[in-house]
Amino acid sequence: MDIAERRKADPQHWRLATAIRALAMDAVEAANSGHPGMPMGMADVATVLFRNHLKFDASAPNWFDRDRFVLSAGHGSMLIYALLHLTGYEQMSIEQIKNFRQWGSITAGHPEYGHAEGVETTTGPLGQGIATSVGMAIAEEAMRAQFGEELCTHKTWVIAGDGCLMEGISQEAIALAGNLKLKNLIVLWDNNDITIDGRVSISDSTNQHERFEASGWRVLACDGHNAADIDRALTDAASGKDDRPVLVDCKTIIGFGAPKKQDTSGAHGSPLGAEEIAAARAAFGWDYAPFVIPEDVAADWRAIGARGAEARAAWNARVDALNGPARDEFARRISGEISEKLAPALNALKAQSSEAQPKVATRKASEMVLEIINTELPETIGGSADLTGSNNTKTKGMEVFSPANRKGRYVNYGIREHGMAAAMNGIYLHGGLRPYGGTFMSFTDYARGAMRLSALMGIPVIYVMTHDSIGLGEDGPTHQPVEHLAMLRATPNTWVFRPCDVIETAEAWDLALDTEETPSVLALSRQNLPTLRTTHTEENLTARGAYVLREASAEAKVILMATGSEVEIAVNAREALEAQGIPTRVVSVPSMELFRDQPESYRAEVLPGKTVRIAIEAAVRMPWDWLLLGERGSEKTSAFVGMTGFGASAPAPTLYKEFGITAEAVTERAKALLA
Amino acid sequence: MDIAERRKADPQHWRLATAIRALAMDAVEAANSGHPGMPMGMADVATVLFRNHLKFDASAPNWFDRDRFVLSAGHGSMLIYALLHLTGYEQMSIEQIKNFRQWGSITAGHPEYGHAEGVETTTGPLGQGIATSVGMAIAEEAMRAQFGEELCTHKTWVIAGDGCLMEGISQEAIALAGNLKLKNLIVLWDNNDITIDGRVSISDSTNQHERFEASGWRVLACDGHNAADIDRALTDAASGKDDRPVLVDCKTIIGFGAPKKQDTSGAHGSPLGAEEIAAARAAFGWDYAPFVIPEDVAADWRAIGARGAEARAAWNARVDALNGPARDEFARRISGEISEKLAPALNALKAQSSEAQPKVATRKASEMVLEIINTELPETIGGSADLTGSNNTKTKGMEVFSPANRKGRYVNYGIREHGMAAAMNGIYLHGGLRPYGGTFMSFTDYARGAMRLSALMGIPVIYVMTHDSIGLGEDGPTHQPVEHLAMLRATPNTWVFRPCDVIETAEAWDLALDTEETPSVLALSRQNLPTLRTTHTEENLTARGAYVLREASAEAKVILMATGSEVEIAVNAREALEAQGIPTRVVSVPSMELFRDQPESYRAEVLPGKTVRIAIEAAVRMPWDWLLLGERGSEKTSAFVGMTGFGASAPAPTLYKEFGITAEAVTERAKALLA
Repeated sequence: MDIAERRKADPQHWRLATAIRALAMDAVEAANSGHPGMPMGMADVATVLFRNHLKFDASAPNWFDRDRFVLSAGHGSMLIYALLHLTGYEQMSIEQIKNFRQWGSITAGHPEYGHAEGVETTTGPLGQGIATSVGMAIAEEAMRAQFGEELCTHKTWVIAGDGCLMEGISQEAIALAGNLKLKNLIVLWDNNDITIDGRVSISDSTNQHERFEASGWRVLACDGHNAADIDRALTDAASGKDDRPVLVDCKTIIGFGAPKKQDTSGAHGSPLGAEEIAAARAAFGWDYAPFVIPEDVAADWRAIGARGAEARAAWNARVDALNGPARDEFARRISGEISEKLAPALNALKAQSSEAQPKVATRKASEMVLEIINTELPETIGGSADLTGSNNTKTKGMEVFSPANRKGRYVNYGIREHGMAAAMNGIYLHGGLRPYGGTFMSFTDYARGAMRLSALMGIPVIYVMTHDSIGLGEDGPTHQPVEHLAMLRATPNTWVFRPCDVIETAEAWDLALDTEETPSVLALSRQNLPTLRTTHTEENLTARGAYVLREASAEAKVILMATGSEVEIAVNAREALEAQGIPTRVVSVPSMELFRDQPESYRAEVLPGKTVRIAIEAAVRMPWDWLLLGERGSEKTSAFVGMTGFGASAPAPTLYKEFGITAEAVTERAKALLA
Repeated sequence: MDIAERRKADPQHWRLATAIRALAMDAVEAANSGHPGMPMGMADVATVLFRNHLKFDASAPNWFDRDRFVLSAGHGSMLIYALLHLTGYEQMSIEQIKNFRQWGSITAGHPEYGHAEGVETTTGPLGQGIATSVGMAIAEEAMRAQFGEELCTHKTWVIAGDGCLMEGISQEAIALAGNLKLKNLIVLWDNNDITIDGRVSISDSTNQHERFEASGWRVLACDGHNAADIDRALTDAASGKDDRPVLVDCKTIIGFGAPKKQDTSGAHGSPLGAEEIAAARAAFGWDYAPFVIPEDVAADWRAIGARGAEARAAWNARVDALNGPARDEFARRISGEISEKLAPALNALKAQSSEAQPKVATRKASEMVLEIINTELPETIGGSADLTGSNNTKTKGMEVFSPANRKGRYVNYGIREHGMAAAMNGIYLHGGLRPYGGTFMSFTDYARGAMRLSALMGIPVIYVMTHDSIGLGEDGPTHQPVEHLAMLRATPNTWVFRPCDVIETAEAWDLALDTEETPSVLALSRQNLPTLRTTHTEENLTARGAYVLREASAEAKVILMATGSEVEIAVNAREALEAQGIPTRVVSVPSMELFRDQPESYRAEVLPGKTVRIAIEAAVRMPWDWLLLGERGSEKTSAFVGMTGFGASAPAPTLYKEFGITAEAVTERAKALLA
């Protein structure tokens, strides 16, 4: 069917979809950069989705029970910007469209969560959207189970491209969704057979139908430029006729309608050019100036944007009809506010621990804290990438989230660190739940793509990263992080906590839960550690980032700084130095980020100048230069005791000794620097 | 069939396989840590493989034309250590087995490349082995095409577990191998249905047969404890009856023979305990002390280890029969030595560029250098993760490596950064080729798992990471690295080059190719940059890591340090400062790692004390503290001009201005510090 026939087949649909295509062409042309091909190719599918299927109300972008729409192929950002503008999202003015990809606009090159309402998650790095959506669909099932289908029944619609499906994270997402039978997850595959380097066949010949079916998905297909056929497929997809998530293979043509560039990678990632745009406009029968939407089309689109108002009103009525406490709790949950019961419960644990002084690994300490958190906060949803017993992430009585038990609050993510991290992003973004998940710290490497998005989006996902150093011992250097603390500390808007005992672990969890803007990484030990905070404080000292854990017996000549498992070493070295008449202070540094945020005066109190300084951490030195050489430190009076390369396979005590990370080594260095 | 029947069915096989099981149980018990279940489960499959199929000669572990054997499920390291010991690899003495997982032994917790001969690659992080193997199989095809089947015809055998198949990287590997029709790649799936957290079904219900078939694999199956059935399947797999890679589903029981723990996750990752081991020994009919192999079994295994001697002799004869130049070139190729023709050719480019002073992006500069490299070095094999035109990785006349053209030296890796990085590891490890591959620097995040292994293994894979800062502009913060330079610089044994112009780019490539021990990352600009090295030097100044690019007109009061695209800013700021009478030196820092390796005296020459120092880099400050505060620097006289958070979507010049990374800003900071 050529364009002329398609125009005739359904003129109203045609004009609605053409409005998207025109805005995409025009905005990319004005920006002189961007990706016109994808929005032009998927305009028909998106039009049918928004017109007939997506549950939303443009006047209330954050309505809790809306369907979620995720543009996994984020480079096609003009598709979603055009849809938001046309359906009447207030923020998304035509000026914003005209300022596509410009400083200060909300129309970034790739959709950025927090910039424009209606953008449910940041996408662009391929595969993230589809994997994040799995988390949204998990959250929808969980919230429905917890609050009832009257309050939570919606779908998660995803547009994914060939690139999303080639990225490994997509397999993790697909397999997880299939196993969990997330039937309200529907992926619309923009099957345009083009990647940047050419036809898909040059790099892939996967039969996607068979691949998805192999992982427990239902697969449908449609002609992605035939509104009736699209509608048939989406209706079937949304029918929930069985319990499988659904892939809809939408056969499309990239850059549809651009006479010379369509169906080539030339339409993918650069402006079409004035001539091609003019020719496309002619083919479309779209005789309007750039950025102009004729009133009939504008009115039709606005009506689509208002389609969900009634459903939303009904939902509001159902919420209002709840009894007071139920309504308050539901409101609290979707607001993300933490229950006031948590703080006193954690304080009690701190008090009790400073008394009992348990000697446990901080991963075990984390479990002790989680016992309280999971009791006080019904919104937590935990999990692990198949290391539950090692990460200590599953507390007593926690049930597994499964097709048979949607009230379970523990997700078996499988051996899928990246998929887990992205799913946690999605769970949080959905609202109503607070996700945490564990793996070995070294496998931060696998999860990085999604962890960076937690930071960029500013969402408080909590990463429980155990086995955080050579202290993991025999598993060897592949499993021993040495650069990962530096990596994470270098990442903007990421809190890295490396607590030294139960009390700092409780404080770190408290901070990680108390923020709504920053993801946290808890770096936790495999090996047992003594309780070092032996005097109870109500104050959360970890919130200061660094603080004096042991004061020197007189004006300090030496300051020992350390984190996590190495604080014990610092404390022991202090004892040895004090015994030799050298007044020595120990500073615990559970979070460099929070210490950096402290007032200069506090930092100067903790780290005055003119002392010897030694930092001790079983990792690379890089992040410590700041505290050794800066902050009144100096090259001549400071040293670092830590790792200079990869670890090795041996029992942990041997490794600490062989790599020279011991109280004796610290003591010697301190004395040498004083001399 | 119970154990007694299996013992009777093939007694010789049974005793061979039992030797592996016993060593695995004993070594894990002695180490008091490790993974007995996998070696016990796969002992039968491995025995049949080594006895009847694998082409190898234990007396010549590095014989070029051997079959490659990769234990992707690296936690089962005792399987490979037992096999190497039993077949007679000289290094793998029984003492090494007894010292499993101990300091100084070659029997690390996970197999480490470079520790024990016969370990073809480091594994442990799941999925890496299978993805690395794809590179080995690519290399085998490429070398066969280049040198003939007489010199290169071998298979790559992989043992992969459920964990490997759940990791996303496995999908990238499978799809790439299927598309490239790597028929000499055979994956033996240890289908034991157990993960650490329990049955596979708790996290996965993928039909692996259908999944592999969907990506173009041939799928076979066998009873993994029946030698005859295994042999049938492996014979079929090795037959090359069509051009697809092969998956063999080996149905096994984890911890096979341990009466209480077999078929449970209890057999996976911890010692079985004395009682269970005794019971297993009884069931096995293995009445020998720990670590004792009876002489009949030892002799049979040694004979297996010598099985390939004849084939190796024949291969040696074929190599000897080559004419002199062909033999020399083949020897050079498999030695990894770089042709002497490269250095003068690169020097000519440097000379010419210092004259012509092209203004090009360093990604384009990299292409100019690659034009020379790919001409002079037939061993290079390039590629990109679907960003060929952006990474500038494909030089003129380069053909694509494909099933139809195995002489092609360019791999379309697809949108698979992690799979690409792992495949490059495998290509290098195979021998004969020098791989490089490109993507956007920000997607280092996706490739991290394999990039870390390049560093840990100490292999000179070259990563061409373009679009290395906010200079990429409109694509926005998802695509703009800010922490990635820090991440990579924090990683041990990784060279990070950020060249400022064509000449530094040529020097960086020269260094990256000249090492056999260290992977290199070339961080390259999207945007055009002037040639700043306007005086030709034969010496490779980048080899010094940092050097004086512009000397101050008198004793320097200010030193500006910068890398890559920011060196131009430093040079402009210097001009402004000099114009105001402030003698200013510019130090280009193309590689911090190499500068750190310089003698202290040289570092002091480049960075004397008592000047103002400003570092300029469009990234986070962390790695610069060393050069700003250390190396005779100080807090009071230094500053950093760079990024403090994520980037934004806008044209690059706007971003530099808005984020304050400009010559004006540098000039102002310098004057403020001087005041």
